[in-house]
This record gives sequence, structure tokens and C-alpha cells, in this order.
Amino acid sequence: MITRMSSLFLRTLREDPADAEVPSHKLLVRAGYVRRVAPGGYSWLPLGLRVLRNIERIVREEMDAIGAQEIQFPALLPKEPYEATNRWTEYGPNLFRLKDRKGADYLLGPTHEELFALTVKGEYASYKDYPVTLYQIQTKYRDEARPRAGILRGREFLMKDSYSFDLTDEGLAESYAAHRRAYVAIFDRLGMEYVIVSATSGAMGGSASEEFLAVAPTGEDTFVRSTGSDYAANVEAVVTPAPAESDPAARPEARVVHTPSTPTIDSLVEFLDGLGERTFTAADTLKNVLVKTRAPGEKDWTLLAIGLPGDREVDLKRLEAALEPAEVSLLDDADFARNAFLVKGYIGPGALQANGVRYLTDPRVVRGTAWVTGADKADHHVVDLTVGRDFTPDGVVDVAEVREGDPSPDGEGVLVAARGIEIGHIFQLGRKYADAFALDALGPDSKPIRITMGSYGIGVSRLVAAIAEQSHDDRGLVWPRNVAPFDVHVVVAGKDETLLAGGEKLAGELSAAGLDVVLDDRKASPGVKFADAELIGVPTILVVGRGLANGVVEVKDRRTGDRVEVPVDDAVRHLLDVVRG
Amino acid sequence: MITRMSSLFLRTLREDPADAEVPSHKLLVRAGYVRRVAPGGYSWLPLGLRVLRNIERIVREEMDAIGAQEIQFPALLPKEPYEATNRWTEYGPNLFRLKDRKGADYLLGPTHEELFALTVKGEYASYKDYPVTLYQIQTKYRDEARPRAGILRGREFLMKDSYSFDLTDEGLAESYAAHRRAYVAIFDRLGMEYVIVSATSGAMGGSASEEFLAVAPTGEDTFVRSTGSDYAANVEAVVTPAPAESDPAARPEARVVHTPSTPTIDSLVEFLDGLGERTFTAADTLKNVLVKTRAPGEKDWTLLAIGLPGDREVDLKRLEAALEPAEVSLLDDADFARNAFLVKGYIGPGALQANGVRYLTDPRVVRGTAWVTGADKADHHVVDLTVGRDFTPDGVVDVAEVREGDPSPDGEGVLVAARGIEIGHIFQLGRKYADAFALDALGPDSKPIRITMGSYGIGVSRLVAAIAEQSHDDRGLVWPRNVAPFDVHVVVAGKDETLLAGGEKLAGELSAAGLDVVLDDRKASPGVKFADAELIGVPTILVVGRGLANGVVEVKDRRTGDRVEVPVDDAVRHLLDVVRG
Repeated sequence: MITRMSSLFLRTLREDPADAEVPSHKLLVRAGYVRRVAPGGYSWLPLGLRVLRNIERIVREEMDAIGAQEIQFPALLPKEPYEATNRWTEYGPNLFRLKDRKGADYLLGPTHEELFALTVKGEYASYKDYPVTLYQIQTKYRDEARPRAGILRGREFLMKDSYSFDLTDEGLAESYAAHRRAYVAIFDRLGMEYVIVSATSGAMGGSASEEFLAVAPTGEDTFVRSTGSDYAANVEAVVTPAPAESDPAARPEARVVHTPSTPTIDSLVEFLDGLGERTFTAADTLKNVLVKTRAPGEKDWTLLAIGLPGDREVDLKRLEAALEPAEVSLLDDADFARNAFLVKGYIGPGALQANGVRYLTDPRVVRGTAWVTGADKADHHVVDLTVGRDFTPDGVVDVAEVREGDPSPDGEGVLVAARGIEIGHIFQLGRKYADAFALDALGPDSKPIRITMGSYGIGVSRLVAAIAEQSHDDRGLVWPRNVAPFDVHVVVAGKDETLLAGGEKLAGELSAAGLDVVLDDRKASPGVKFADAELIGVPTILVVGRGLANGVVEVKDRRTGDRVEVPVDDAVRHLLDVVRG
Repeated sequence: MITRMSSLFLRTLREDPADAEVPSHKLLVRAGYVRRVAPGGYSWLPLGLRVLRNIERIVREEMDAIGAQEIQFPALLPKEPYEATNRWTEYGPNLFRLKDRKGADYLLGPTHEELFALTVKGEYASYKDYPVTLYQIQTKYRDEARPRAGILRGREFLMKDSYSFDLTDEGLAESYAAHRRAYVAIFDRLGMEYVIVSATSGAMGGSASEEFLAVAPTGEDTFVRSTGSDYAANVEAVVTPAPAESDPAARPEARVVHTPSTPTIDSLVEFLDGLGERTFTAADTLKNVLVKTRAPGEKDWTLLAIGLPGDREVDLKRLEAALEPAEVSLLDDADFARNAFLVKGYIGPGALQANGVRYLTDPRVVRGTAWVTGADKADHHVVDLTVGRDFTPDGVVDVAEVREGDPSPDGEGVLVAARGIEIGHIFQLGRKYADAFALDALGPDSKPIRITMGSYGIGVSRLVAAIAEQSHDDRGLVWPRNVAPFDVHVVVAGKDETLLAGGEKLAGELSAAGLDVVLDDRKASPGVKFADAELIGVPTILVVGRGLANGVVEVKDRRTGDRVEVPVDDAVRHLLDVVRG
């Protein structure tokens, strides 16, 4: 196929769009791949649609390769299945809801767990039918509070969602592993730099779950990775290694110290250091943070205390993930007023446990460690309060902020922070949806077997932007070979008719050899054409210029900028080698 | 590719679904192609999706072949563009409307004229950019009052919509002609029986317009076709041939006859015949029908009288089409009371024209024809009232019912009625949308040129059902080769391991030769497998049965039922010939 720039529906822009902040958004708009239609709603122009379809094809091939079968659901869905799983309510304002002419409630599907479960229930009855994995590549809708970054977080987007249905937990683990392999194959073929991080489950409810994050400084997701291994995880999923326990009796006796005007860790450490007895750091202090929690369906809040080293803050995302599905909130003054035993700035384990407040501590607070902490009395702290001797926490909670330089949980290297774009998510959903719809298979003994599900997603349209985030320079986009809108961009560098004829001839030969060619046959200046070619980002640029008179053309690598002169007669063979690698 | 029935996500049904009336709906559900999710909302199971994609591919190829460029819009669209053209209101309850979390109004796109016009306006400025034709294959939404017949009239459906943008009317005519050719190529490749009928414009507003109707007795659209030529048209578009004019002076003088108790045509004809003077038929009488009309934006209704031969009724669809965009309504008693000159049952041209009522007549009421009609006085008619002598109508209106046996407007043969399914519509939209959005190109003289548009649609998902309507028998579906879900259906007719091995081997060889094969490797009986093969409707069935021991297999044509025995060693070559024809 030859596409001619003279008739291609394309206008490149010299200026970044006013609403664009991230490179992919700027470049995809400037290079004429997408156009904004509404907040979070974009149209795909010819170049963008080509890239989208290339990604879609790779996703489809790899899903087919693991035996997943493609089907397709409507986007406009009745309320009832989503009421059965409570997601009609749980999704809150993120769900687009509407009524039809008869007043019946509908939604625009954000994901399709309910429909897949009901469909499998409708078709399959016997254990012999299982396992089965189904998928669709379909338009999804979420009414994002802040649609941003162009197609990176839109309100209408293309997603591959698949669902596995197994008779056993082992079967689910196999389906999960097959998807993991397929995702690795997909993202490898797309030429992406990505990490697979352990994830918490979010609103889905379930157990094993991993996210695929495209590494990008503009990403919305933060994660940590090890300097010494492949370890990578969402901060919510980082497991802090616990130090070895020791004998509490070996510690000096605990004693209360008068520490006037030391309500903060810094002031406390400064005061204690000033005593000249020994050196204290913030990490020697035990900070007790009070929150209140409420389980789903409960009316009243319950106090919860968290003890952690004084040099750490509580990470609210980690806290929320750890306490899910309970809600968590900070205390207000009324809460302190109601609980007079809470001496602000001087709270210690003693008063907490004496007053029945559940007290959880950081994994570093192990048996035998000694701490400086509040003495439950204004201007007083207790020193050498030792775990397993002077107090015993009610349990462990791993919610302290994760910091660069922390040891990697796998023992190899230390953690560093990075940012990424979520491009895939695989998830052992378990029986939540099967329970909601009584999805059973009739077993060999005629007893029902409750099906267990996995749910797996890839943001297909988001990938266009994620790839662009990873693959651009200051002149424009640089597409990986497998997703580029064309194989070769032929630039006729001059208005001379011989050059145009030469470009047409070469484009025709390349097309006949099976390559997808865009031919810049416009009357524009070579400078305009080169700038557009760099902006559009086809990986290989063939320049038909003055050299043609001497029988040579130039082949330029968009990424490296390397140029080689090639005899015209050898150009097709040379380009086939370049493209097919 | 080999698809194995043992793992294909498919369950065929022995019974027709309770809500299905037309064959395509019954068979597509029974054969496991689609499943109902909501009223007018269907999911595509693996077999259905394969057929849908095959159709989509053919549509795409032919659109690309006429130089149309594919883009894609969101389905979720902001209200504003549709308010600018008034379609936000005009669509009435057929439009799905919703609000986002901020309360902004959105709709689910029923067609995309507005967005295409705005997009071209956004990208193109100069006359040199034109002409351009853009298309998308995209999900559309219409809140049909009565979704019916499965995917034949759904509320969410896949449509190819394209739009041409030209500088001149001649350019539009060329774009229109290119689409017409492409549509002919598409429906020919799909193996359909269809007619192209002149259409009225419907809600779109504009001029030249044709519909492609798949001939099917279950179709919702009626049309007429000639027994003697290719002529076919919607009844709204049939042009009644006018007879030759004659000299009004040659007619007997008009006279008023006392015709007691003859308010109906039948009673009048019977009475006149009873006079014994000469023979009268209903076709000799001129019936005057009163309606009231109201132009858009007007408050008051205006009377309109229509004179037509007494043996014809007014066809309300033809009337509405003829008076569009004015509204039309029948008179009620209050209207008659207000206009005392209307003597019910005895209305004649005299009183109508004397009282300023616009009086339009059927094309058959030409100069020199003489009629029996009302004398504007109870129980009286006038005989031999002659056009051009005794009265002259204010104009012609062609709204009488079209009947089988009427002469074809092209003079060849007579008309017969038929029914069809609308599968395509091509339409010279003109400047309506360009006017709404000031879509201009800067001309060579730097003056703006208002763009003229064409709009062209194909119901892609509907085609699956339309093809099924045309291509089935009492045992199941019979897909045309180009859209069939597979090339060959291999039935292993027996549980013997050698048969299964033989089937696997042949399926493997066929697949290696590039054919798409479904292999029935289930443990079911041959009877069940044959019934499923007939129901599913792959055009060629390869039976691997007892003959295998003697080195032969059987190739069956699904449509004709013809069977031939073929040596195993020759089977692949034979099937390649059959499939590639």
C-alpha cells in the first residue's frame, strides 16, 4: 500500500496544544494522530488509527495463542447484573449511567466481569466444558474525575479485557500464568520498557494480582524497584523486611524522662541528645499515630493506633490498602476531646492498650527492640520501652512510607523510586462473581463446582500514548517497528519532476515487495517534509534527493539519525533488510 | 487455523428462542452466533464475531479502494454540535442522552455528520485540500421504540458511515457515484440479492438519495419493482406516469346530479350505474381528501385538499414525504365545524377553490380528463367536471397508493410489491451541515467556498442478519463463501480413534494450505455433529467417516446438499478448488 501525503487526511501542527502537558499528548496531537472531541474523548485520525490497529493485532495474536476466544459485548448494559454485584453503587460517579426511552436504567460498561460470568453460565453446564478463557477488544467508559494527558487517561477508551473460568484454584493459577506469559510477549513485541509489580487488589476484591507498568517519568503510578535485582512493586505492595528478634531482658530498664516542650520527634531527639547520655536519632523513637476505621456496613468509627519508627511517616495509600475494605480517616479535635487519655504529642502504648485501642506496629518493631516513646503525660517520654517486656503490640501493620535506599524485600540491593503508566493488570479474581451469579459446573459426581475466575486487562488505546511516552525525542515521535503507521517514509526532497518520478517508482517497488509506504509527494519544501517525517516518526526514512542523479538515495534511521547512501537499484533489498530486521 | 469444536465457546440450541420471529434471529441464536443481553443489545459469540469481521473487512477494502480514509470518533459525544444542527432536539426519544459527573450533556452518537464536518473544518483550509472522503466503522446507538428481530434492528449496532466533502455539486455527484460503485461491489462480494431504490430523504434534509435493500420477505421496508425492467423504488419515490392531455372542449358538459345517500365512492358508483346512462367505475370519480399542514416553526395549520381517483387511497407515507418538512394531520370534527363549506362526502373543487383552499391533484388528473366529483351540496355530485374547462387544480401531488399492476414509471412492465431490509443508504446531503458550521475552503481567489457533503451508511452488524435472512434453509444457516466463519467444517463421523486421527491430519493439511478449518472432534454422535454442521452453515463440509478405511472421504456442499467421494490423498487439492472456486 502507498499512502500519499498529498491526499492523506493530515495536518501537522507547529505548536503544542494548549491543554497538553505530557510529551505523548503534545506529539500525538501535533503529528495529527488524534484530535480532542470532548474532555477525555478523542477521535483517531488515519495515522493514529493505524498505530492503534497494529497494537490491537499484536494483542489479539497473543491472546489467541494462549487459546483465549474472542467475543464481544455491548457497551450499553442493563443495570441489573451490576446491581447483583453492587458495582452499580460501588463505582460511584465513575460510572456513566443513563435511562432509555422507557425509563429503564443502563450504564456504559467500565469492565465486563458480570456479563462474562453470566454468558458462561448461559452456555456451559458441565465440568467437561471447562476451563475456558474469553476476551474482547472493546470500547470502555469511565467518567474520570480528571481526564488527563490526552488518550493516556480518557473517558472512552479501547481495552482488551479477558476472563478465565476454572474449576480449581490450580486451574486459575495456570490461566493466570498463561496470561502473564501472553502479556510479557505482547509488551516485548511492542518494544516497551516495563516492569511487573505486585499490586494490591483495588476495588475488584480478590487475591493474586500484578500490574504491568510502562516505565515513564510522566506516569501516574509510582513504584519502587531494586538496584540489585528484578524486584519491582507498587509501594502499597512492598513488604518491609523485619529485623531479627533479640532478648528483651538484655535491654536497659525502661524509665520515664521529663522532656519539656518536646511534642515533635525533632524536638525530642534534640532534647535527649542534649542530655549527653547517648546518641539518639529519630529512628530510635516510636511514633504512635491515631486513626479511626469503619468496616463496610458499620455505623461507628473505631480508634486504631499505629506505632512506627519516628523517622517514618504513615503512607496513606499503603494504609488504605492494608485496611481495605474498611474505611480509614484521621482524627479530628472532637475525637481527641472524647478520648482524654490521648495526650497529644506524648501518646504511648500504655494508655492505648489500657483503654482498649487496638495497637499495630511497623514490622521493624520486633521483640527485643527498645524505643523512646510517649509516656501518656505532657512533657514526658519513656526511654528503652522494650517490645516483649514492657509492651506487646496487637499485631503488625506495614504502612510506613517506603524510601529510596530502603533494603529490597528480596535482600538484593536497595529500593529506588520510579514512575510508570499502568498498561496491563492481571488478577486472580476468585469466586466473587461466580458467587454473585451462582456460576457452577456440574461435576463428574453430579455435584456443583463453583467456578473461579481471573480477570485480565490491557489498555489498548492507552498503549499508543504509553509507547509514545517511551519513544520520542525533541523532534517528534519514534515508533517501534511493530506499531509504526508505515514501514517506510519516502521523502521526495525537491520539486523536480525526476525526483517525484523516482520517489513514485521506489514507493511502488517497496509496496510491491509488501511494505507499507507513505510517500511525501507534496509540493512543500524539503525542510517542511523532513520536519514532518521526524514528527510523524516512521522508523525508516528514505530520502530521494539530489543524489538520485548519481544513482543513490539516502536511508535514514529515525531513532539514531544514522544515514547511509544506497544505490537506487539496491534500495528495495536494503529496505527490506532494514524493515524485516 | 484450526478451531476445535471440543473447546469452541459454543452451545447450539435445539429450540428457537421464544422472542424470535424471523429466521435470521432464530438461527443466529440457535447456532450460537449471538446472545441477547438487553432489548436491542446483543453479544457476539466466536462464530458471530468471525462473520461480522469478514463483512467488516470487505466493507473496509472497498472503501479504501475508492480512496476513502478511515478514522474513528468516540461514541460518547458532547451535546453542542448536535444542538447547532438542531438534531439534539429533532432526534426526539431515539437519542440516548446522558449527563457526566459534572452535569454536562452528552449523547451516544446515532450518526456523526456534525463531528465529521467539524473535524474537516479543523484540519483543512484550502481548496487544494479537497475533495476528501472519510469513513469509520464504529458502534452506533439509537433508542429504537421497538427493537426487533435480533441484530436486524438493535439499539447498539456496528455501522460504516462515510462522508464526502467536495467543493462543487459536480464533485459531490462524483463522490456519490464512487460510493454507489463501492456499495455495489460490497454487496456483490457478500453474495446478496439486493435492489437499489430511489429514496426520499427522511430526517437528513437534502437531495439525491438511494437505498440498498436486501430482498427478504421479512424486511421492514416495502418497495416496488417492475416485472419488465430493473426499476425499483420505495413507494414514497414512485412517480406516477401522467396520461396524455386531451381537449377539454371535447367532453360532455358538466351537470349536477341528485345522488341521494351516496357519501362513499361505492354507493356513488352503484347509484350512477343504476341510472343506466353509461358505465361508471370508482376510477371515474374524483375523491377530494382534506388534510391540514403546518410548516416548521409555524403555529397555525392550513387546509390542503388532495384530489385523486376514487379507486385510490392516499398513502400517508407518500403524503408525508411529499409535504416534508411540513407536518401533516387529518381533520377532526372541529375543523369541519369551522369550515362549513366542507360538505362531508360531497366535497368538490368548486367550494375548495372558492374558499381559498389549496387544491392539488393526482398526476392522472390531467387537462381534458372528466370526473364525477362532489357538488358541495349534500346528496349531489357533478358528472363530467373537466380539467382545464370546469376547474384547474393548483398543482400536482403524487401521493396515491401504489398498487401491484400499476405501470412501471419507466414504461417497461408493471409494478409488483416486495419487501426488503435496508442495508445501505447513499445520500447527497448538500450544504446543510457545512452551513451549520461555516465549513468553507479558501478558494484560489481567496474567497470562501462553502463545502458540499455526502453521507453514506452501511449497517455492518445488520448485514450479518440480512445475509442470514437470504441464506438459510430449514436445517440452518448457509453462509456465502466470503463471509462464512470457516472455509471447511471437518466432521469426524464416529468415535473410532483412527477417524479422529484422520480428521486431525486432514484439518492440519487444510490449515497448512491456508484454509480456516473448524474440526468437530467432539465425542458426540455423528447425527449430532451433522445437525450442528448444517445449523452452523459453513458452505463446505468434509465428512471423515467409514470410507476412510477405503481411502475416501466425503465432501458435501451445504447449500445444494450434493456429496462427492474424494480420495483422501486428493482431498486437500479438491477442497482448495472448491473454496477458492
